[in-house]
Amino acid sequence: MSRFILAEDQLPTAWFNVLPRLESPMEPPLHPGTREPIGPDDLTPLFPMALIAQEVSTDPWIDIPGEVLDILKLWRPTPLVRAERLEAALGTPARIYFKDESVSPAGSHKPNTAVPQAFYNKAEGVTRLTTETGAGQWGTALSFATSQYDMECKVYMVRASYDQKPYRKIMMEVWGGEVVPSPVDEPDHPGSLGAAISDAVRDAVGRDDTHYALGSVLNHVLLHQTVIGLEARDQLKLAGESHPDVVIAPCGGGSNLGGLAFPFVPDEGVRLVAVEPASCPTLTEGRFEYDFGDTAGMTPLLPMYTLGHDFVPPSIHAGGLRYHGDSPIISKLVKDGRMEAIAYPQGKVFEAALQFARSEGKVPAPEAAHGIAKVIDEALAAKESGEERVILFNYCGHGHLDLAAYDDYLHGRLIDA
Amino acid sequence: MSRFILAEDQLPTAWFNVLPRLESPMEPPLHPGTREPIGPDDLTPLFPMALIAQEVSTDPWIDIPGEVLDILKLWRPTPLVRAERLEAALGTPARIYFKDESVSPAGSHKPNTAVPQAFYNKAEGVTRLTTETGAGQWGTALSFATSQYDMECKVYMVRASYDQKPYRKIMMEVWGGEVVPSPVDEPDHPGSLGAAISDAVRDAVGRDDTHYALGSVLNHVLLHQTVIGLEARDQLKLAGESHPDVVIAPCGGGSNLGGLAFPFVPDEGVRLVAVEPASCPTLTEGRFEYDFGDTAGMTPLLPMYTLGHDFVPPSIHAGGLRYHGDSPIISKLVKDGRMEAIAYPQGKVFEAALQFARSEGKVPAPEAAHGIAKVIDEALAAKESGEERVILFNYCGHGHLDLAAYDDYLHGRLIDA
Repeated sequence: MSRFILAEDQLPTAWFNVLPRLESPMEPPLHPGTREPIGPDDLTPLFPMALIAQEVSTDPWIDIPGEVLDILKLWRPTPLVRAERLEAALGTPARIYFKDESVSPAGSHKPNTAVPQAFYNKAEGVTRLTTETGAGQWGTALSFATSQYDMECKVYMVRASYDQKPYRKIMMEVWGGEVVPSPVDEPDHPGSLGAAISDAVRDAVGRDDTHYALGSVLNHVLLHQTVIGLEARDQLKLAGESHPDVVIAPCGGGSNLGGLAFPFVPDEGVRLVAVEPASCPTLTEGRFEYDFGDTAGMTPLLPMYTLGHDFVPPSIHAGGLRYHGDSPIISKLVKDGRMEAIAYPQGKVFEAALQFARSEGKVPAPEAAHGIAKVIDEALAAKESGEERVILFNYCGHGHLDLAAYDDYLHGRLIDA
Repeated sequence: MSRFILAEDQLPTAWFNVLPRLESPMEPPLHPGTREPIGPDDLTPLFPMALIAQEVSTDPWIDIPGEVLDILKLWRPTPLVRAERLEAALGTPARIYFKDESVSPAGSHKPNTAVPQAFYNKAEGVTRLTTETGAGQWGTALSFATSQYDMECKVYMVRASYDQKPYRKIMMEVWGGEVVPSPVDEPDHPGSLGAAISDAVRDAVGRDDTHYALGSVLNHVLLHQTVIGLEARDQLKLAGESHPDVVIAPCGGGSNLGGLAFPFVPDEGVRLVAVEPASCPTLTEGRFEYDFGDTAGMTPLLPMYTLGHDFVPPSIHAGGLRYHGDSPIISKLVKDGRMEAIAYPQGKVFEAALQFARSEGKVPAPEAAHGIAKVIDEALAAKESGEERVILFNYCGHGHLDLAAYDDYLHGRLIDA
């Protein structure tokens, strides 16, 4: 057997909260003006109370509402796949498993949190959500989720992406999302994620019917993603594995990594590995300190590894990993030594992507390929040492809308940064 | 439950041969020069003996080689999904099921035959395959399959598509396929499927190490696709359905329709429906007669519904359905009254695609959306009459590489032909 499938009624019914399982409590977010710890009231213009409560909850498990499960089950549980053809190509004794999050409607793990975020907002009477999107994965996911709850969605898309990636924009429109280039008031500016966040936040605070939604970094976002790791635990048992030796995922804001890895945090023997781009090495070369989530300094200050909120990463193809900061929980796990981090240049990443596509048949998103590059290194290390290592990684998205990046790689135009 | 999953070891191990189940024998293909029935020797320059034998076999079942199953199981069995959210949106008492063939590496049903075609060629010592591709689905599938058997693949792509659809070309290159625009000797010509077939055939007959591969129309191609219908039969039983009332699929050359429908041919109460574009109405407005498979008249004459081998269909977005002829078996089933056919304009088709995307979450290929338009009509007819109709259709491909067509539809640029 190489694919391990759970039945629909084996979908997790509660999210795994890693907060009460950490070695020590998290440091609180600070108000951008007063630099005092923020309270719930500071966040109510942007988020519904249910999400604000999840942000700080110390309950070990948080129930997933039935109305959310009804939509998640359109594609969940996702398959766990043993990459036997990749193993054979590498000649490794390692057993390699991946969680296939590319099967969601939007093609990535992002709808796992877009759906509950839309639900909780709708439940509190909000009928419209705004957000920013860079590469487009998050905007796509939120457009899908709001279409399921009959809500409006407005996506501020970084203008350079808006112009260069029309397919992502169209996909949002197929689900009824309204997409505008950002910054809205500077039509000649190429835009940035920071500016797009400012546009989306400004829109949300200005209207009673509207809230803002974020696709990574925050605790409640990573909480929603833990369905990935919970399913993977059950599926590894189906595959006859007691536990993985190493869990690997790419890391931008941290949501797909947290989703897969958090349920394994209490298992001390399991190594957890974050893979980031060498051109945006937040965890490997950043500093752990309080910093803003956005460029303009409008968001609360978060305790995290950061390259500085004014850091502008080079325009690499894994747009989802181009973030100056990182999830505070991920940052803490790395700081405490519970999680490793490694950075790769994109040439190595696309080499791994091609090897995966030609052995396993699936064309990965550049973000996912960062994880695959580390998987290959781990599998070759196991071959070297003759070890039967069990490797688990997150296939967090397909590359169907990223083929221009492959074209650059195949024809020698990729900048190997 | 809304998704019905078979285990890997429930993948069919034999293909279903509809030939011995037809009311009367098929009329033979004729030699394009002599107009006499062709024999195996006429086909050996192009195809391996195993496929030539399958083309005329009357064995009711034909074993699938283990080496083929090893690759099919990368994505098969595919899910059968009950489209409960679409049912709710339509308010229909019908129960709607779809077979999700979009989960294959190439994103459509095409690899089901690309893999065995590559295998049988390799087994007879062929190391290189040529083919033509229009929209790109078939070239993608064959590039994937040859990469799995370490064979070379050369794809002659209709020049207009080559220029307009770079993503499809890149996907073929990711799997190691070589893609060139056709016609090769007329760089200013936009090309046609007929001319591309001529290029691919000429290449294959000129080299001992090379054969040609076709992605639809022929009996052995449709045979390989019957895994779709065989799995669907088992999955409907899991869903508690004794049989479908109506089986629906889009029809270009006939391979995804044949693959889903053939296993239901012996079940007299089951209606079988082909859906084609109004702009290329082969089954609904063509004539049943002997005609060439290609524009240039190089292929054998096939007994089929045809609009004439010099018919040039308008440039609609469902490129996979733009074929002047049709599978001889499909043609015979329609002529004998065992199968219905209906044609829709693409405006109605995209309206259905959008309704599906917003209810079920998946963005269909324009080809698949032809079937969905008929599904919606059948479901609304069931609502009108208060009937509990069981509808089965083939979700034969995703629309991730067809988003430009959605853009045209959403912004009023679609020609409603």
